[in-house]
This record gives sequence, C-alpha cells and structure tokens, in this order.
Amino acid sequence: MILFRCDYGEGAHPEILRRLVETNFEQMDGYGCDPYSESARRKILQACGCPQGEVYLLTGGTQTNATVIAAMLHGYEGAVAVETGHIGVHEAGAVEYTGHKVLTLPQHLGKMDAGELADFLAAFDADPNKDHMVWPGLVYISLPTEYGTLYRRDELSEIRDIAHKYGLLLFIDGARLGYALASPACDYSLSDLKDLCDVFYIGGTKVGALCGEAVVFPHGAPNHFFTTVKQHGALLAKGRLPGVQFDTLFTDNLYGRIAENAIARAHDLVAVLKEKRIPFFLESPTNQQFVILENTYMERLSKEVGFDIWQPYDETHTVVRFATSWATTKEQIERLGALL
Amino acid sequence: MILFRCDYGEGAHPEILRRLVETNFEQMDGYGCDPYSESARRKILQACGCPQGEVYLLTGGTQTNATVIAAMLHGYEGAVAVETGHIGVHEAGAVEYTGHKVLTLPQHLGKMDAGELADFLAAFDADPNKDHMVWPGLVYISLPTEYGTLYRRDELSEIRDIAHKYGLLLFIDGARLGYALASPACDYSLSDLKDLCDVFYIGGTKVGALCGEAVVFPHGAPNHFFTTVKQHGALLAKGRLPGVQFDTLFTDNLYGRIAENAIARAHDLVAVLKEKRIPFFLESPTNQQFVILENTYMERLSKEVGFDIWQPYDETHTVVRFATSWATTKEQIERLGALL
Amino acid sequence: MILFRCDYGEGAHPEILRRLVETNFEQMDGYGCDPYSESARRKILQACGCPQGEVYLLTGGTQTNATVIAAMLHGYEGAVAVETGHIGVHEAGAVEYTGHKVLTLPQHLGKMDAGELADFLAAFDADPNKDHMVWPGLVYISLPTEYGTLYRRDELSEIRDIAHKYGLLLFIDGARLGYALASPACDYSLSDLKDLCDVFYIGGTKVGALCGEAVVFPHGAPNHFFTTVKQHGALLAKGRLPGVQFDTLFTDNLYGRIAENAIARAHDLVAVLKEKRIPFFLESPTNQQFVILENTYMERLSKEVGFDIWQPYDETHTVVRFATSWATTKEQIERLGALL
Amino acid sequence: MILFRCDYGEGAHPEILRRLVETNFEQMDGYGCDPYSESARRKILQACGCPQGEVYLLTGGTQTNATVIAAMLHGYEGAVAVETGHIGVHEAGAVEYTGHKVLTLPQHLGKMDAGELADFLAAFDADPNKDHMVWPGLVYISLPTEYGTLYRRDELSEIRDIAHKYGLLLFIDGARLGYALASPACDYSLSDLKDLCDVFYIGGTKVGALCGEAVVFPHGAPNHFFTTVKQHGALLAKGRLPGVQFDTLFTDNLYGRIAENAIARAHDLVAVLKEKRIPFFLESPTNQQFVILENTYMERLSKEVGFDIWQPYDETHTVVRFATSWATTKEQIERLGALL
Repeated sequence: MILFRCDYGEGAHPEILRRLVETNFEQMDGYGCDPYSESARRKILQACGCPQGEVYLLTGGTQTNATVIAAMLHGYEGAVAVETGHIGVHEAGAVEYTGHKVLTLPQHLGKMDAGELADFLAAFDADPNKDHMVWPGLVYISLPTEYGTLYRRDELSEIRDIAHKYGLLLFIDGARLGYALASPACDYSLSDLKDLCDVFYIGGTKVGALCGEAVVFPHGAPNHFFTTVKQHGALLAKGRLPGVQFDTLFTDNLYGRIAENAIARAHDLVAVLKEKRIPFFLESPTNQQFVILENTYMERLSKEVGFDIWQPYDETHTVVRFATSWATTKEQIERLGALL
Repeated sequence: MILFRCDYGEGAHPEILRRLVETNFEQMDGYGCDPYSESARRKILQACGCPQGEVYLLTGGTQTNATVIAAMLHGYEGAVAVETGHIGVHEAGAVEYTGHKVLTLPQHLGKMDAGELADFLAAFDADPNKDHMVWPGLVYISLPTEYGTLYRRDELSEIRDIAHKYGLLLFIDGARLGYALASPACDYSLSDLKDLCDVFYIGGTKVGALCGEAVVFPHGAPNHFFTTVKQHGALLAKGRLPGVQFDTLFTDNLYGRIAENAIARAHDLVAVLKEKRIPFFLESPTNQQFVILENTYMERLSKEVGFDIWQPYDETHTVVRFATSWATTKEQIERLGALL
Repeated sequence: MILFRCDYGEGAHPEILRRLVETNFEQMDGYGCDPYSESARRKILQACGCPQGEVYLLTGGTQTNATVIAAMLHGYEGAVAVETGHIGVHEAGAVEYTGHKVLTLPQHLGKMDAGELADFLAAFDADPNKDHMVWPGLVYISLPTEYGTLYRRDELSEIRDIAHKYGLLLFIDGARLGYALASPACDYSLSDLKDLCDVFYIGGTKVGALCGEAVVFPHGAPNHFFTTVKQHGALLAKGRLPGVQFDTLFTDNLYGRIAENAIARAHDLVAVLKEKRIPFFLESPTNQQFVILENTYMERLSKEVGFDIWQPYDETHTVVRFATSWATTKEQIERLGALL
Repeated sequence: MILFRCDYGEGAHPEILRRLVETNFEQMDGYGCDPYSESARRKILQACGCPQGEVYLLTGGTQTNATVIAAMLHGYEGAVAVETGHIGVHEAGAVEYTGHKVLTLPQHLGKMDAGELADFLAAFDADPNKDHMVWPGLVYISLPTEYGTLYRRDELSEIRDIAHKYGLLLFIDGARLGYALASPACDYSLSDLKDLCDVFYIGGTKVGALCGEAVVFPHGAPNHFFTTVKQHGALLAKGRLPGVQFDTLFTDNLYGRIAENAIARAHDLVAVLKEKRIPFFLESPTNQQFVILENTYMERLSKEVGFDIWQPYDETHTVVRFATSWATTKEQIERLGALL
C-alpha cells in the first residue's frame, strides 16, 4: 500500500527530528519564549522581507484560521470566501463558532474571481438593507486553493485592491504555501506576500513539520494577539515544538527545498497519469492532482493505493485526489505507475 | 542557570523521540486514524480499566478544558470551579469564549470543599430566582490542584456524589495527573478514576510528551465529539504526533515510571529547601513546591535559578514555585542546594 | 404619502391598545408569570390543538430565530435554510453569533425543494469527510417565505419526513404566519402545524401587535428554555406586554380575522396593479406582492408612495415590494390606484 | 393583595398609553427610523447635555447590558463588576454567552470601591502571567445598585479616573436611573453623566414604560452599532414602540417627575416600616428598601402583600425587598401600614 491521500501522511523532515533530539534536554521557558521560537520568528520575518512584522506559531490550520479571523474582525463582520473555501466546508464551522459568518462567492477552479468580489462588495454597499446584514470584513483565500490551483500575482493584487477599497482585509491561508511558491507557475515569492495581503500563514504541518503554522502579520499583529491565541486554546506550553521545527525549516531554506521535491514528484505523477491516459479533472500546477476514475477501477485500485475521494463526477465516475509531498520519492511514483 | 520554573522546561522523554524517529516514514492516515493513535487509545483504556470507554487525543490543557466543557454543558449551564481553578484564571477566558460562565467557590490549598459545593448547589436549588441564573452543569477540579495538593479518595467520592445528586457532571483536569498518581499521598490509582468522575484527562505535555492530553470518557463520549474537537481547532492533521507519544507513554507504564522520578526529586528538593531553612507556603505532596523568599534574596537567586513567581506574600516576601519533572536529575537538585 | 413598504407600518390593533389601557394598573408579577400571559399561552395552545405543548412569548423575529435555533441545536450542528432565508441574509448573522452555521440550499420562489433537501442530506450522509463538517441539525423554513409564497401541505409533510429521516428537526418561522393561514391558497390550518413541524412561531409584530412572537413547542420545550430566553436577552420584565397582546389576538380569533383583511386588501392591490399593467415579478398568494418597475417611474412614484426596493431586475428596472397588512384600508388601495 | 415586589408591576404611565393610542395609525418606517424615535433621541441627548452624542433604544436590561458590553470590548477582554452586579448573577450568563468573562470585585452595600478597583487593576498590570488572563476592558456599575444604594459624584469620578488610567471604559447600568437621580441623596444630575462615564443607559421598563432602555453614548457609538443591535436580536421592527414611549418620557421631564413619586413613596414606606419597628438590612436612599423579617411573620404577611425574598439573614430571618415605583400611591403605603 502506498498513500497519495494527502501531504501529511509521513512524520517530519528528518532534519527537524534531528534538531528536536539534539535540543531535547536544553531547559527553556514555555509559550514561545524559548530561543528557538525566537530564532524561528526572526528567520521567518527575514525570509518574508518584513523584519518589522510579527510572527506567531500556532499548531494547525483550522485553529489558525479561526483564531486569526476572529482576531481581525469586528463583531458585526464576516469573512468572504469562495464556496469551496476550507473555512466554509471542512472546518466543522470553526469560524462560525467564533460568532462570524462565512459569506460565499462562486469558485472557479477553487479560486475567487476579483470581478465577482468587486460586484459583491459594490452590491452590498448599495444595498438599502445592508445595516441588517453581516458586514464583509475580511477576504479569505487559500494559496494554493483546495484544487491545487494558484492565483497569479496580478490576480492577488486585484483582490487586495478591491478588498482595501471597501475597507476589508485580505487573509491568505497558506496551509500548503510552500507548494504554491515552489511551483514554476508561481510568479511571486515569499517576500512578495507582505505587499499582497494583510496577514498570511506559512503551513508547516503539510510541508515537513509534525505540526505548526506560522502566522505572519507584516504590519504588526492585533493588540494582545498572544492572549487571543491562548483564549482559542492555540498556545502550546512547549513552544519549542513549533519553534525548533520552524527554526529548522527556515535554516538554509529547507522549507523551500523540500517543497520543491513535492512539485517535482507531482510533475512525475502527472506524467505517469497522462501516460496511463487517466483523464484529469482540472490542471493543477502544485502538489495536488485531481483525476477522474471509473468507479469499479477506483474500487480495485484503492486496495493498493491510497488516494482521496473528492466528489462524484457522474453516475459511474469519481473525482479523486493524488497528493505528493516533501517526502514523496521517485520510487513511490514508479510503483504507482506499475499499479495503475 | 537551572530551571525549576515549571514541568515543561525540557522536550520529551527520549523514548518518545526514539519512537517518533523510528516510525517517521511509515505512511499513515491523518486525524487519529493511524495505528499508533489506535494503539494508544486501547492501552489508555486498558490502563484506566474501562475498555468500553472512549479516548480522544488533544494537544494542550486550555484547549482540552474548553472543548470538553463546551461539549458536556447545555447552553444555559456553567462550570463550577474554585477561585484558583485554572479555567477561571490562567486560560484567558477560553471557557467563557465558548459561551459558558465559570461559577466560583472558595479554595482551600487549591481544593474544593465538598461541603461548600453541597451548600452552593442547595442554595441554587432553593433560590427563587434560579431561572434567571446560570445553571451549574459541571464541576471542574484539577488533580493535583494549582497548589500541587491532592484530593483524597473519599473527598473525590463525596464531590462526585454531590455533583450527581444535583445532576452535574464531574470533570477532572489531569494536566499533571501522573504526578498526582505517583505521589505516596495518593490513595487511588488511574483505574479508580473511571468511578470517581465522568470525564478526565491524562496530561502528556507536563509528563514527558512534547504535547498532548488524552481525554478519557469512561462511559462514552458526547455525540460527534470528533467534530466538536475539529470545530475547536483541536484536531491535529498528523494524529500520529500525540498517537506515538501516548502509545509510548502507555507501553510498560512509562507514564507512571517517569512521573515517579518527579516525585522522588520533589522529595529531594523539599529536603534541600528545609535544610536551607526556607519556609514553605504550604505542604504539597506532588512535584510543585511553594516557598516564601525574601525579596532581595529572591532577586539574587533568580540570576542563577529559574523559579516561578506565584504571588506576593507580604511587603518584603514573595511566594515562589519550584517544580520538578520527569526530567529532573539528582545533580540539578544538588546544584540548587549549593546555590541556595 | 401612503406606505406599503411593510406590514409593520402601523401600531397595534385598537383592541390590543384598549386592553393594554384597561389592564394597565392591575399589579402583576413579571417575566410572563402574569395572568394575561398565562391566558394567552392557554388560548394559543388551544388554537394550535396541542394543549400539552408549551408556548413562550418573545419580542421580535430575529431574536426568536436565534434563541430557538441555538436552543434546539447541538454545538456541532447547523441550520439548513434556502439562500434567501431570513436567518441567512437579513438578521445580521444572529444565528452565527450563537456559534451555528447556516447551511444553504437553492430557493425556488423563496421555497425549499424537498428533493433538494433530500439530496443534500443524502450527500452529507455519504460524504467520507462529514466528520470535518457542520452537521445539519435543523431545517429552517418560513411561512410565508420571503417572497410571500406558500408551501402546500404535502410539501411541508415531505420536508418534515426528510428532516426526520435524517434526524433533523423542522422549524417554521411564522413571522407572517397569519397571512399564510388566511390565504385561500393555504391548504392547512393553525392546528395542523403541530403535526407538520417540531417548533414554529406565530408572529405578532407583523400581524397586529406592537411586538411579540409566540413560540409553540407542540411536544414540549427544551429544558430550561426560560433561562435560555433570559440568556439571549429575550425575556421582557413586563411579560404583560406580549401577554395582553397575544391574549387579545387569540380571543375570538382576532388574529385570524385581521389577517384576512390583509389578504383581501392584497387581492384588491393585485387587481389595481394588473389594471395598471404593472408586471409582476412572481405570483404571491399572501400579503406581499412583488412587481417590476421602470427606474425613472419608480423614482417618481416613490415621492408619494412608500414601497420596498427588493432587488435590481435589469439595468433599467427594479423589483419592488408592496405589502398590505391588518391595517390596510380599501381607501389606501384606491389612492394607490389613482397615483399609479 | 398589594405588590411591592418590584418596580415593574404596573403597565405604563397613562400619558405613554395615550400617546401610543393617539399615534397608532400614523404610518411610519420601522427599526427606529420613525419621527418619534428621532424626536426621543434628540430630547434625550438634550436632557443629557450632549447633543453630539448617540442614542439607541433597546428593549430590556439584560439585552442592553450584553449588547453594549460585547460591542465595547475586544475579544480578549472582560467586564469588571462587583460580585452582586446584575450581569454576574441574574442575567443567566448573557455576557458570557457573548464570549466575555465577568471579572468580580467585592461589593460594599452593592457598590464597587474605587480603591479596590485600583488595587485589582494594578495587580493585574503587575502580574507576570497577565498575558494568559482575561484583560479587564470595561468597568460595569449600576446606578442605583442592586441594594438601592448610590455612588456619590466623587466616587464616580474616582472610578472613572482609575478605569481610564488603565485603559478601561466605564459603563453605567441605569435600569433604575430615574430613581437614582430623583433621590435627594444624589449629588449629580442626568446631564453630569456624560462626563462621569463612557456609556450609560436610561431605564424605561422600571420607570414608567412598558419596555425600553435608552443607551446613551455621549461621545459616539461603536461603528455599526445598529447592526450589532440587530445581531443581538435587540432591534424592534416597530421602533415606534420605544420611540413614542421615550419621546413621552422626555417631554416636560415626565421621566424625572414620575421618578420623584417613587422616591416620595419610598420615604413614606420607610416611615411606616420604622414605625412598625421592622429592622432594616441596610439604608437605601432610593426606591428599593431591604428589611429583615422573622420567617413565620414573613410567611403570614406574604398572603396579603407581595415583596421579594432577597436572601437568608439567619436561621429564622430573611432579608426581603419592598420596592416603590412611579405608580405607587399613598393609599397603598397606608394599606401596607395597616397590614404590617
């Protein structure tokens, strides 16, 4: 059995484990006041080109989305996301649990269309009943999207400009950010994000860490964000756990390098799938690939290969996802080729 | 510098790291569906003497308290805790953030008095205005308490009986549970807890793990508790992280054995402190020891020894906490003795 | 200027005011323990054919929706509504503020389609990721809908059956219930509702009262619903205010009789609009009528007639709403006819 | 049977009912956009000496407290109140339901002590763990207090200064504000409050209205407070209901004049109680009087007189409350005298 089900099927990059072992008996203060968290934050801000910004290390994606969104919105505001946005579908209503509505726009291969956002905000602005409605306060997008697709730089700028024009913030969910930035199709780099949005996070869990998401506020965090993190149950006593991990990931660009492996293997994967004439559901330039399998074939294949069932395609076919990761090997792709 | 500031100053027990490294490249499903989480849950239920129960592995204490309390209470109910209870003071209002009030009782060396609980519930019951008030729905205690003290078995039974008499549940916060059970002063064992309360958790973060708290529902969890955990941002994608850790801690009773080290070292610590004639603030049978230091002496000592400032004692003295842990060595206690 | 903007443009039915004046100096207990609230509850249950049920008198619609929905859902559940449902659009996120997501289905002239509900629930049930999603816990529909349309009895039965099949409750928002029941197109009566849903409310604010909505739980209310009402800020100290009003409305079927006036006047209104060849946006059998006005004409007309701007129709036309009410007179319709 | 149980035992001042009847068929826009709400807001700001301020008309006290507090606090903040404060005891946890903790201080005849507030805030400020705690964000006091007592002007100034020094806002719950201001013991007037706090409300429900509380923001309301009011279910469709009432109460100082009646009758009441040698629990300068009754006597008396059971005094005695109101007559006091 080989798993292409997701990009969190393995543990951590070995270098991370090596550093955790190496530093294990150093005594440190908790809650992110240890030297490794300190160093991680500094290196991240350096890599992001905003040394004056602030970084907070949280544990997982849903937690990070809910904590950041609740901290950035006023009580009467909601977050705007596309209908397939992770916060609106697969986070068990974590954002609503904080009291905020997720307002939805159509999706196009997982992406938000800047024009539709503009129309939505203009229509809200013109609505004579808007005072009876949830105020859009923040735009949420993910990079890459749920379908592995990417925004171009000009698309991000346009979304940001429209958001700002109407007084909204732009938040980028970067649970798989490494895989976006490592894609040849990506026309911006980590240090460009500070200008393209108001807050984003750099996903660790899916890119080599055991756990951990680094929230970057390029222009400073909301007041007492530390307390908000604690209030959301998102503060680890042993801050060294994300600290050592992100410090390692941001030493000698390990984060970028391992993300590149996922993209290279995804390239190999696409070649194998195409060779086997398996039809693609859409074209993805990152580590998640969506193909259409005939149901009995799918059933048979699932005995030896792990993939994620995404959505029904038609009566007899299903869309499934294959994901590569920092840990995927050429051998695994070859074995998959043999099994297909 | 040696730190006695807390029991989460080191990383993880080396056996845990060894197992994380060893299993690192095994491909597994996420969200606790991996074989190590499976095995950990089974071993924990075995150790707790309730194989029919349910276990959920969460990440940290505040998160666990808020998630469990919100899941067990009706909307109109609150949690009863002593005024020094962790949920009421040092969790940034995480319980209130879920919409539930923390109702407070006096504390006695950190403990709740069963008689006072009975009086409180009887008074509520008799209050003609009770329908305008928050209904007490759950009793929260910690084991050991914030002051390192322990409930005796008969005290726990009495609190449980009173809680049940009035229709409340009893929840035990066991962030440091290992250190309670390892104390010679403790007249019950892990497998007794299933009868002494309705839900409890076994703290990993402070007893040898990098992170992780194992919530035990001896009689079954609330419906769809998995979804509730997700909604609270408390579900790790890499469930193997707490899974491998708790599997290791509950193999050959590692959890119990390392907790014993903390108690043995606390015993040494008490001896050293008494030898130096440092007055104790109270008597604690577990790994946290509270002493009274003169302020200028405290200032000087803090240059070489880390301890936690607890509360002012009088104008010129302060109560401080020294904590031992699974990782504390005899040498560290000796060095402390030399420095005092 | 005559207003057809809404059905809450006037005060209260004169009989209500007469009774408020008449009983004004009777001393009564607060919070619904007065004899008029008592009597109102009894008469309402009588009229609903469920003397064993429970009634609570709240103040307004948004408040009632949020309070009832929060009381009936578990923490991990959401409410299913059509995309034009009042709770999802014009209640400022009041339901989300209680922590629950509103899950949306398409609307058909404001109505939910039973087949689409069934498909949605079946798809949820079959979704391998459903544990990461908000569980549908309750179906919310309104009677009449936002477009003034009505469900037939068989449609309600079908929605109820599907909801129950999947373990959901059915809640009917009856802010304008009187106008539904008074319509000749309605093939059920007030006393049928106890079998057609799990909870509903009888709107007072829009049908003759100054304020007040009567929530009917045909099979008993959730535990301590009184306290939940208080917690939501929905409990009036002077319970006599809704008490006297509903007692009056349910004496000699005043509620039904005044609702009939609205329907009769809506009939007149439709005749006038048709006579003036104003195109209808849809056919509504109740007191709200939606027509399409050319924009410059609309502008001019709005100087002398109040109507509600509903939504853009095309570049040069707008959908507007005319509403009649218990208070609308034949003369007002005639004056409108003259102005059109 | 005569009731002295509370100050909301009667309906409304007849002048209010007269105006409701008189304006009943005027057609008006909803949600506070009617001319009477407009006029009420203007007159209230005039009376408060802050024509640039903002007024919102809500329905009841608990609702008002929760809505205002949630709107003024950041997510990580709580409200400071004395342990007998209404928000902490008799509002069913409505404030916690919005996610905010109520932090408690001791009470002294129902009042907060400025020195204790200063000590509390200084201790919080100095607490090395404060980032793990709920931040005090607002001071809540009531005027008069739950025990009918009053703050002197210098006490209010001091509390305000301390609150501001530490960055907190001061909110005055004026559910019975009229009875405070009408007391000869009160050394400030309505127009002084704008300088003594940041936000307060003028209670209508207990001072002559059927319902309604007027929130006054002397220096402007939080952004989009209208939407927040809607989100809390606190917006009446028929805004004319509180509008006409407050417009009437603030015409020719009706509010002040009827409050004076309550104080005059309370004076008569005290005389009668003293004459009958009934011991007072405390001295109250307003319309609520607290006396100690022997239990069997209390039982007997309760057959003919309604009073509120407040709290046990000792084994054989109980503290009970007698309240006068705008509607209390000399005859009622005389009848009570005869019955005692």
